[in-house]
Amino acid sequence: MQIIDLRSDTVTKPTPAMLQAMFAAPVGDDVYGEDPTINALEEKTAAMFGMEAGLFCPSGTMTNQIAIKVHTQPLTEVICDVTAHIYQYEGGGISFNSGASVALVHGERGKMRPQQVEAQIRPLDNVHFPETKLVALENTCNKGGGTYYTLEEIAAISEVCRRHNLALHLDGARVFNALAASGDKAADYGRYFDSISVCLSKGLGAPVGSVLLGSKGFIKRARRVRKVLGGGMRQAGYLAAACIYALDNHVERLQEDHRKAKAMKEVLLQTDYAESVLPVETNIVIFKLTDKYTDAAFVAALEKEGIRASSFGPQMIRFVTHLDVTEEMLQHTLRTLKAMNQVSLATA
Amino acid sequence: MQIIDLRSDTVTKPTPAMLQAMFAAPVGDDVYGEDPTINALEEKTAAMFGMEAGLFCPSGTMTNQIAIKVHTQPLTEVICDVTAHIYQYEGGGISFNSGASVALVHGERGKMRPQQVEAQIRPLDNVHFPETKLVALENTCNKGGGTYYTLEEIAAISEVCRRHNLALHLDGARVFNALAASGDKAADYGRYFDSISVCLSKGLGAPVGSVLLGSKGFIKRARRVRKVLGGGMRQAGYLAAACIYALDNHVERLQEDHRKAKAMKEVLLQTDYAESVLPVETNIVIFKLTDKYTDAAFVAALEKEGIRASSFGPQMIRFVTHLDVTEEMLQHTLRTLKAMNQVSLATA
Amino acid sequence: MQIIDLRSDTVTKPTPAMLQAMFAAPVGDDVYGEDPTINALEEKTAAMFGMEAGLFCPSGTMTNQIAIKVHTQPLTEVICDVTAHIYQYEGGGISFNSGASVALVHGERGKMRPQQVEAQIRPLDNVHFPETKLVALENTCNKGGGTYYTLEEIAAISEVCRRHNLALHLDGARVFNALAASGDKAADYGRYFDSISVCLSKGLGAPVGSVLLGSKGFIKRARRVRKVLGGGMRQAGYLAAACIYALDNHVERLQEDHRKAKAMKEVLLQTDYAESVLPVETNIVIFKLTDKYTDAAFVAALEKEGIRASSFGPQMIRFVTHLDVTEEMLQHTLRTLKAMNQVSLATA
Amino acid sequence: MQIIDLRSDTVTKPTPAMLQAMFAAPVGDDVYGEDPTINALEEKTAAMFGMEAGLFCPSGTMTNQIAIKVHTQPLTEVICDVTAHIYQYEGGGISFNSGASVALVHGERGKMRPQQVEAQIRPLDNVHFPETKLVALENTCNKGGGTYYTLEEIAAISEVCRRHNLALHLDGARVFNALAASGDKAADYGRYFDSISVCLSKGLGAPVGSVLLGSKGFIKRARRVRKVLGGGMRQAGYLAAACIYALDNHVERLQEDHRKAKAMKEVLLQTDYAESVLPVETNIVIFKLTDKYTDAAFVAALEKEGIRASSFGPQMIRFVTHLDVTEEMLQHTLRTLKAMNQVSLATA
Repeated sequence: MQIIDLRSDTVTKPTPAMLQAMFAAPVGDDVYGEDPTINALEEKTAAMFGMEAGLFCPSGTMTNQIAIKVHTQPLTEVICDVTAHIYQYEGGGISFNSGASVALVHGERGKMRPQQVEAQIRPLDNVHFPETKLVALENTCNKGGGTYYTLEEIAAISEVCRRHNLALHLDGARVFNALAASGDKAADYGRYFDSISVCLSKGLGAPVGSVLLGSKGFIKRARRVRKVLGGGMRQAGYLAAACIYALDNHVERLQEDHRKAKAMKEVLLQTDYAESVLPVETNIVIFKLTDKYTDAAFVAALEKEGIRASSFGPQMIRFVTHLDVTEEMLQHTLRTLKAMNQVSLATA
Repeated sequence: MQIIDLRSDTVTKPTPAMLQAMFAAPVGDDVYGEDPTINALEEKTAAMFGMEAGLFCPSGTMTNQIAIKVHTQPLTEVICDVTAHIYQYEGGGISFNSGASVALVHGERGKMRPQQVEAQIRPLDNVHFPETKLVALENTCNKGGGTYYTLEEIAAISEVCRRHNLALHLDGARVFNALAASGDKAADYGRYFDSISVCLSKGLGAPVGSVLLGSKGFIKRARRVRKVLGGGMRQAGYLAAACIYALDNHVERLQEDHRKAKAMKEVLLQTDYAESVLPVETNIVIFKLTDKYTDAAFVAALEKEGIRASSFGPQMIRFVTHLDVTEEMLQHTLRTLKAMNQVSLATA
Repeated sequence: MQIIDLRSDTVTKPTPAMLQAMFAAPVGDDVYGEDPTINALEEKTAAMFGMEAGLFCPSGTMTNQIAIKVHTQPLTEVICDVTAHIYQYEGGGISFNSGASVALVHGERGKMRPQQVEAQIRPLDNVHFPETKLVALENTCNKGGGTYYTLEEIAAISEVCRRHNLALHLDGARVFNALAASGDKAADYGRYFDSISVCLSKGLGAPVGSVLLGSKGFIKRARRVRKVLGGGMRQAGYLAAACIYALDNHVERLQEDHRKAKAMKEVLLQTDYAESVLPVETNIVIFKLTDKYTDAAFVAALEKEGIRASSFGPQMIRFVTHLDVTEEMLQHTLRTLKAMNQVSLATA
Repeated sequence: MQIIDLRSDTVTKPTPAMLQAMFAAPVGDDVYGEDPTINALEEKTAAMFGMEAGLFCPSGTMTNQIAIKVHTQPLTEVICDVTAHIYQYEGGGISFNSGASVALVHGERGKMRPQQVEAQIRPLDNVHFPETKLVALENTCNKGGGTYYTLEEIAAISEVCRRHNLALHLDGARVFNALAASGDKAADYGRYFDSISVCLSKGLGAPVGSVLLGSKGFIKRARRVRKVLGGGMRQAGYLAAACIYALDNHVERLQEDHRKAKAMKEVLLQTDYAESVLPVETNIVIFKLTDKYTDAAFVAALEKEGIRASSFGPQMIRFVTHLDVTEEMLQHTLRTLKAMNQVSLATA
């Protein structure tokens, strides 16, 4: 049986063309700054987002954690939404790697409003408080169900940051999905963010890698942090070549993933087991089960039909569409979701 | 003009009798464990709360921070209410001193329910998460307006902790106020908490000092942490003597402070400038101003009448009653609060 | 002009056969534990060294830093030689990543004697000291000039560790060079070390990657630390495939690198510009220049002849031989080194 | 039997006059900056050393650790002598509190030469290294046996620091002993140091307390760090009053302590059990025992005669003279040391 893996867009495997690009890449020792393919990727990504410089890293967790470390010090604080990946899914790295405190905003499906950000800024000159230093957005918001900030919304938060002398970081794990959905231009992001983590191994389909973007001075400091965390790789140009290929070939097609996610939502809305479905804005579908299924039972039932999904909390299920989900797989998934509606509780 | 200082119960000064006790105290080098007065205080406090051992420290922030450090390690997480002193007013020390992450509960005026605590516990065996290790209560809850947990409520949270193998710490900055209000017995606390920070320099009126309580093994580890933080003092028995005096003489009278706080609340409820007053359960009065005054203007107006109060956020004011607030001072305060009601906006 | 790169054995590039192995590799999402090639590499390396389990990481710095983190906590101390890579070249990571203190032994060219290790162990039960927890060896010792510990020497240090309940870690950046020179068996290492970092991207010629070895429990904890440091990669099996190829095909040939290094030493000993040459035991040649050249001038002079070398401190030069240094390159290097002897100061 | 406590100069107890000064001190809440006695002590000490501002702390470990924290950040490094108190006896606090790395100089009895300091400075712009930020001296050097730096020697090290843009901190645990022995003026220190920790509870005889000195900006940042470490005390003016008394009355008499220490050395030099005695420059006497006694046996033998001494490593003994060692006690000690010379091994 063919497996349809909807657990995450991290599971994609390189296409033959991407693999060929990897195979042909010139490489060198990146710790010495001598890998031409990595250098090309860093420059290409920086240019794309209107930033000065880039740094290739083995994961989006590392690009985020490095950015937090460079922007903060112990005795300072980071503001982010309570659902943010940097707070929820990076092992408590804000405190582990940076010794920084965190102030949590309860936004709307992962999206913070400027006023909410401002309300979390600590008063200056009071020894009881850490000093607020950094605001971090996630676009799209994974735990929010793939919601996205528009450029206008970003600009408004950026304005708060500038007024209070705070840095603004973007966790761009799925920034290309946000751009595809909003119609905003990547190049405009550079005006608002002090650093951006761009992930190439999710919807874009590269096997490994994220690029951290910022000013030249920022990236110089980031390079030191990458070293101490153990992220300095040698001839990693093979991985970077896949990222370049992805940027050149897999950005446009993200609209397809969004269409497929919406198709799944439409079916779910008509079932008896989906109590509610979050609005689908990009490639993530999150829904809550009625008591017909537990999340574990539902995941198991899908698995039998060759479909893998993620339990996303009690009674919560997440699907993510991506490069490796074909039209045929979509149709099979839709059929399966409908069929589960007819299943009596006894069978389930 | 006599000053009535309602900013905090930390401002009390020793009574003559306490001062006499201080300077009659035998002392020694506590880093060698040879200060007899400190040893006596540690034993007395431990016995009072049904714990094995104690450690004298220069502040309640240090006793809390040491406890957090001993119970956690980097890559672990602490659960507390979002209003908790350990999170809000200790400089981000959970991450600074312990490198631990924090999960925040939005309780009722600082008080968490057992279900809320349980909902924050991270799943085991998932590399994305820190490991939940510690739950911390604050009793009474300062930012909650002096609310208190009853022993029954404590027991219910303790039960969650035991089931999930978590430590339970009490920030007892105002634990004697909680005991006075609830009628619970200090000795019963030892059954539920793995560590207790008991502050002697707030309502009890000692000039300096808190005692950290726990098992012998816990206190042995705590002593190491105290040293590295710089909390090892030499002949500090003078301070400990004041604490012993306070335990012997100032516990019963806390009811007086509670009565005075309630009297202030009653007056405030009849003014045109207090939009709302939090219920007064112990010695803290927190109220919100209408737009008749800003918090800064209100504090300034009181100051002119010899009364000091704390701004506690935008439009928020806090009064704290304590040992140095006499009956006469209370009456002056009540008169002043009433008089401000008649002040026209122009004058204010 | 052909470049002969003697700066480090990290600069090697994959052979065509290795490249073919890489791109034929089956891959999967390693964060989910589903990359079959990574799993195979981890198991293969663990078996080779007589350890239970392995963890693939993007660099040897990361495998070392993870091991230190798992073995220690803040308030503990690591013992290593003052020349150790973990102390000298990993960005101060012992304190940055682990908050642990370090006790430095002044060994013989990077090699510590058991008595020296024992002398650094802190007395227990004294609050002034961190608690000694870990001893770390480096084999071969880079800054010591490629010196190696024999199994017997390792066993003697291991015995000290067991007596004092300390963990023993091996930084095996060049462990295969040590094995090649000593004739010891990799499988015997598992009896003495609690963790081993095995680097595949130095003399073995893989482009990227190190494997951390230890008990199953140790590796489980290491996996959490890898995540928080950002070392969790997705479809990294392409890199792991190169490592497997290297283990199968490039271990035996390390003797060649050692022979070439010794040939360089012999020539250097007869020059007027090498004041002294460290004994050459493996693939590293370190020598001190007379005042005929500064280290910068010497490196520049070699560069003109197509040879790259590292300045290794004032008047110090390091050559490293490796997979990409052919017999022809060796002969060119030897000729060049001899020729520089005849150069008059004016020309240099 | 009267006890003669030579273990440390930390064991002194207040004289009646000092106690009276303490008892009479006006106090206030120092967290609000309102304790007049603490404010007076901070200003007095700063003025004395030619610095802008001061901060009262519960211990010299805290003043040192705060200074290190303010001067450094994670990814930076501190240079100090291998015997330095900040490295040896503060629980590994350089890494625990600051996450900073340490570079250790092997000076002459605790004293570093400028060239030794300079040799430890890390090259800039190399991602493998932490960034050197701080040099710390200890004057007098405890573990060096009470050796002292002269102002000229301090100036030479300061010059290295300025050239390399490094901060220079003084651990002045026994700075008044250094001044007494060198004849240098305290006020001249301010020209060379960026921060000074002045301890009042050692030779000066105050029961508790150290003052950290620096620029106004430095002290403002230090105040934040004091809070997060838990060093913010409330009405601690009683302790500060003792410190002021000590500065006014106990500085001149330190010469007495030095004379007594030298007298002990003279006797020890003529015994059969002292294999060697370190030169005595101030109030510390360190000597090595022959195999007539172990250090534990020697300490026990002295204890029987009412004299307490410290074991200071295998076969090493330390005596420290101080305020509470009277002339009569000195004579008893000298008699006892001589008598032990005649004891046969059997008896010992």
